[in-house]
Amino acid sequence: MVKDDKARWLWYSGDFEIRQGLLQNFSREERSYDWPAYWNIDDCHKNVKFKRYYNLESETSFRVFATGIGYAEVNGEKYSFENKIVCNSGENKIRIFVGNSESLPAIYIAGDVIKSDVGWLASNFVNEMPAGWSNLYLEKKKDPNKIYFDKEIVRAISISECEKGVLIDYGRAIFGTIDIKKLESTTPITICYGESEAEALDVEMCYYKEEQVVIDSIPRKRAFRYLFIPNINHTQIDIDAVHEFIPLKNQSSFHSDNELMNKIWDISVETFTLCSGLFFLDGIKRDRWIWSGDAYQSYFINQYLFFDEDINTRTMLALRGQNEIKQHMNTIVDYSILWIIAVENHYMMSGDIEFLKQIYPKMESMMSYLVAQTNQLGFIYGREKDWIFIDWSEMDKEGTLAAEQILLLKAYNAMIVCGSTLGENTEDYFKKYTLLKKNLVEYFWDEEKGAFIDSYESGKKHVTRHANIFAILFDFVDEVKAKQILNNVLLNDGITQITTPYFKFFEQDALCKMGQNDRVYKIICDYWGGMVRKNAVTFWEEYIPEETGNDIYEMYGDPFGKSLCHAWGASPIYLLGRYFAGIKPTSPGYTTFLIEPQLDCFTAIECTFPVKDGSVTIIKKNNCLTITTTKEGGTLKLSSQEINLEVNNQYRFELDNVLVRN
Amino acid sequence: MVKDDKARWLWYSGDFEIRQGLLQNFSREERSYDWPAYWNIDDCHKNVKFKRYYNLESETSFRVFATGIGYAEVNGEKYSFENKIVCNSGENKIRIFVGNSESLPAIYIAGDVIKSDVGWLASNFVNEMPAGWSNLYLEKKKDPNKIYFDKEIVRAISISECEKGVLIDYGRAIFGTIDIKKLESTTPITICYGESEAEALDVEMCYYKEEQVVIDSIPRKRAFRYLFIPNINHTQIDIDAVHEFIPLKNQSSFHSDNELMNKIWDISVETFTLCSGLFFLDGIKRDRWIWSGDAYQSYFINQYLFFDEDINTRTMLALRGQNEIKQHMNTIVDYSILWIIAVENHYMMSGDIEFLKQIYPKMESMMSYLVAQTNQLGFIYGREKDWIFIDWSEMDKEGTLAAEQILLLKAYNAMIVCGSTLGENTEDYFKKYTLLKKNLVEYFWDEEKGAFIDSYESGKKHVTRHANIFAILFDFVDEVKAKQILNNVLLNDGITQITTPYFKFFEQDALCKMGQNDRVYKIICDYWGGMVRKNAVTFWEEYIPEETGNDIYEMYGDPFGKSLCHAWGASPIYLLGRYFAGIKPTSPGYTTFLIEPQLDCFTAIECTFPVKDGSVTIIKKNNCLTITTTKEGGTLKLSSQEINLEVNNQYRFELDNVLVRN
Repeated sequence: MVKDDKARWLWYSGDFEIRQGLLQNFSREERSYDWPAYWNIDDCHKNVKFKRYYNLESETSFRVFATGIGYAEVNGEKYSFENKIVCNSGENKIRIFVGNSESLPAIYIAGDVIKSDVGWLASNFVNEMPAGWSNLYLEKKKDPNKIYFDKEIVRAISISECEKGVLIDYGRAIFGTIDIKKLESTTPITICYGESEAEALDVEMCYYKEEQVVIDSIPRKRAFRYLFIPNINHTQIDIDAVHEFIPLKNQSSFHSDNELMNKIWDISVETFTLCSGLFFLDGIKRDRWIWSGDAYQSYFINQYLFFDEDINTRTMLALRGQNEIKQHMNTIVDYSILWIIAVENHYMMSGDIEFLKQIYPKMESMMSYLVAQTNQLGFIYGREKDWIFIDWSEMDKEGTLAAEQILLLKAYNAMIVCGSTLGENTEDYFKKYTLLKKNLVEYFWDEEKGAFIDSYESGKKHVTRHANIFAILFDFVDEVKAKQILNNVLLNDGITQITTPYFKFFEQDALCKMGQNDRVYKIICDYWGGMVRKNAVTFWEEYIPEETGNDIYEMYGDPFGKSLCHAWGASPIYLLGRYFAGIKPTSPGYTTFLIEPQLDCFTAIECTFPVKDGSVTIIKKNNCLTITTTKEGGTLKLSSQEINLEVNNQYRFELDNVLVRN
Repeated sequence: MVKDDKARWLWYSGDFEIRQGLLQNFSREERSYDWPAYWNIDDCHKNVKFKRYYNLESETSFRVFATGIGYAEVNGEKYSFENKIVCNSGENKIRIFVGNSESLPAIYIAGDVIKSDVGWLASNFVNEMPAGWSNLYLEKKKDPNKIYFDKEIVRAISISECEKGVLIDYGRAIFGTIDIKKLESTTPITICYGESEAEALDVEMCYYKEEQVVIDSIPRKRAFRYLFIPNINHTQIDIDAVHEFIPLKNQSSFHSDNELMNKIWDISVETFTLCSGLFFLDGIKRDRWIWSGDAYQSYFINQYLFFDEDINTRTMLALRGQNEIKQHMNTIVDYSILWIIAVENHYMMSGDIEFLKQIYPKMESMMSYLVAQTNQLGFIYGREKDWIFIDWSEMDKEGTLAAEQILLLKAYNAMIVCGSTLGENTEDYFKKYTLLKKNLVEYFWDEEKGAFIDSYESGKKHVTRHANIFAILFDFVDEVKAKQILNNVLLNDGITQITTPYFKFFEQDALCKMGQNDRVYKIICDYWGGMVRKNAVTFWEEYIPEETGNDIYEMYGDPFGKSLCHAWGASPIYLLGRYFAGIKPTSPGYTTFLIEPQLDCFTAIECTFPVKDGSVTIIKKNNCLTITTTKEGGTLKLSSQEINLEVNNQYRFELDNVLVRN
């Protein structure tokens, strides 16, 4: 933890994340061209005023450093940046004005008393808020317009000659640059990148290709495992990979008697770590964009791996942009709604009231934007140019959709929870929630089918899994309806299967919630295990077991369109932590939390998962279960027992008999 | 005129002006620091989509050039920039995506058929509009992120030694850089700039100072007439001034028997030319910001000098910013209102329907922003942080103000005129106009004083000139009330005098409108003549006849705070053209226009003023008046006669007898 009185770079709250989010969403590359994201992307403010009043006991001095132009003002007198400014004792009103026409305006103030620590306000000349800052920019020498990656040199594990060239395999996924240590060629070379060997070897169709390379070339940051250099032999060349990353601490561990499950865990961790940088990315090769739906799932995975609150808030701030809303997040209505739901989840995870205060006005404006497109029944509808996504699945999308309504219902709920926490009036959200809930059941619940139908306007009464999954996940159906959904939809093979790993996340979540751990365990072993059997080093954007040969790399009509390292592929981390270890907060920031292990599928397992400022370790061995937590507030639920756990006490249970011996 | 099918740089409509406006508002410098403007400044969009569909008769090819990253897409296929793209005959859907994280995203397409001419649409992914372009960026080699100034080398007219240094006088105001042709000094020198000799010689307090100068130094663009270099003698140094400007064609000429008036004209032209660049600036030394109130007056002066429509539209687009409004223009409520009024005036001047279509949505959103702060009487009030400016004058500012209401009334009128022209429904504006007009008179007209009072809420019934001037200017009083205002306010020395040249503009305008040309003639000779007598080479931000010595340079508590080249100082151009030559449009774009010369103050005069696509020349000599116009639609009004003028026909009149001999 950074002390509040340590100097740091300051900016207008949210602007760093918005600015870097823009750069992130501009970083996609495909073959020979750049592919900036195709939605309206906000930028940071270009001029900002910082303010703080001091009542000084004695004379003191300070210097202001800034990314941009401007001046410091003390009691109405203006001073240049970087020069020493002396303040007399007594009342001193300090204001700092910074403009930066190209990037983020930020300040760093060096001084004994007057410095850029916590307590400064920043204004865009309309709103004044506590200044924003990041743990990543605490030192004057760290320019908040640059990202400082840690670097790891990766040597090739194999270099082979084939197809009249050299194929280099680094044995793992790299997200970084290359370092050409030797290049003996009279002509510049071409380097073809591949997440797969097949991609690297396809000189025409590989996604990334660097041409005209000489020894000094430093190609841009890319995702790859393989390099292929045509028309050269192995004695002529030596290239290291330089993996670049922002370090995140893995706070979990997992080891079980099931070696396949252990591999799935390890590859999930590798995948998720690679996709977690300044923000949660969908994938490292493609799209490298910040998608709200993908990020939503990453927040949940993060909670059971890094428990890194900062990457959550950075991602949420970047996604949300400036206060004025011009378009749905990534153009998708459900992604805007998921963003609101995610904020509540982050609050439950972190208990961070300060962030909630900062973000709540942007939740409110997001909600207003959504409410403006609801009808008199309270149903949200898509407008021209809105993308009603839900999933890439066949669905009856005529008129208003059940799945969107259930998301909106959960979002109202999030507004009520977050608003109430801050003492805001949430009565209006409650009214809207009540109306929508009533109409949702009245119009979309089909008693005969015992399930929610996609659309009531078409008259087709078509049932897909999506709305029903959300209804279970967000607790909007009673036990009776939930069981109906389980049997009539989730366990009914007559209902079209979920095929995207994106929605598989929600489906497994719902199945576990309905006590179907055994089934989910099997799915993990089959689906994720299937990728392991195909020698995956990271989990893919999509896996279709029937596909063979190079077909497995195809997606979106592109032979190498599939991302082979995709964040949502890491969902086993969440499922194992949340439903097998069975850990979840029951009040914000894990002030109280529940541990309800469901480990029947494992004969032996040893795992640790983070909770806020602590961890829980669960060991099952020789029919004996041991639970330890380093954080107060834990309640263990085992069979019918509920035990309030003491910190650092080992609780041991004989399984079958459940005898406590702590 | 540029042909519509000539290729040019294209961008999202308004973005070039917004981007350059930001840079302009960041260019203020004061002594050792930069002073970015203190209001929320919009930037251009950072990613834009261009679109056009072609139905090609035969195969053709093109190349896309861009300021930024991205790709071109033809029928769904993506291509890199700069490479040749071939299109087959038939239907071709072309889209171009450009992102630029730091500056303006723009495209230039070179091709025979497919090129970046008029007809492309540009979208910010929310709104799609005809792409924006400028006459200044028609060639591929002209980067729309740079400004290309014409340059003029100015040699010193005197170099003298004083105060242990060298004082250089260029004899005129320069807005540019310097070229150090000789510098023989073992140590770097200091260069002090001055609009006045006194300022340059004040090494401590001069506004601009360049330190550590060596022969290769190229100091930034600044405004000055004098340079002072301490601790050097005249043999050691030779410096040229490099004046930088965007050429604007002076379409007027003025010569009379009054030499003082001729000088006033010339200095007005010089002043206004210097303050007219990409935008109308307030002044060249200070602030170099785009102020809506100052710009408002410049549009009127422009109409009688350059008749340059582009500088009007650039300035209006920059001022207005992006569609979402966060704050009043320059923080000032009246400046927002003046902007709306200015659009109508520009339409009357130019008849430019295309621009009106482009800007009307932004007029509407501006109007909504204003309406949101009106009360049930229809009166606009200031909110916290709003600046209700009107003028730097003592005024009873309690509650709602008469002057603001009259401006708002005129703005409703502008909405009605512009909206109706475009076939928009303006009924709501008409209702608001009617209510406000009724209440304005009911609450603010004081029958006893025969004038509008500042505020009715305070009970003080204080009368200042401002509201009364606006009421006359905008025709909101009948002849009876207008005469009352003239006698009770304008000609009443008991009412506090206008002291700022800013409001003097409106005052002279109103006086002329009330037939007081004689009085205004005298004021021009006295007030502007006063500056001429003090050897002004440009007109000042403010002139107080009583001030002597260096006090004349002081303003805002700063010894050299006064701008000596200030756009609003050039108002004689407008007054002479509008009320003495008597030219004004009576329908948009001067399709019909009036010439009503009021030249009694002149014995001899020869002057030409522009009208849209033409000019009017008026010669008075030997008691004979000659009028010629190159544009159809002119009506001459002389005494009680009205004559429809034929193009290029010389109309001659004996004054006294008014005999037509054409």
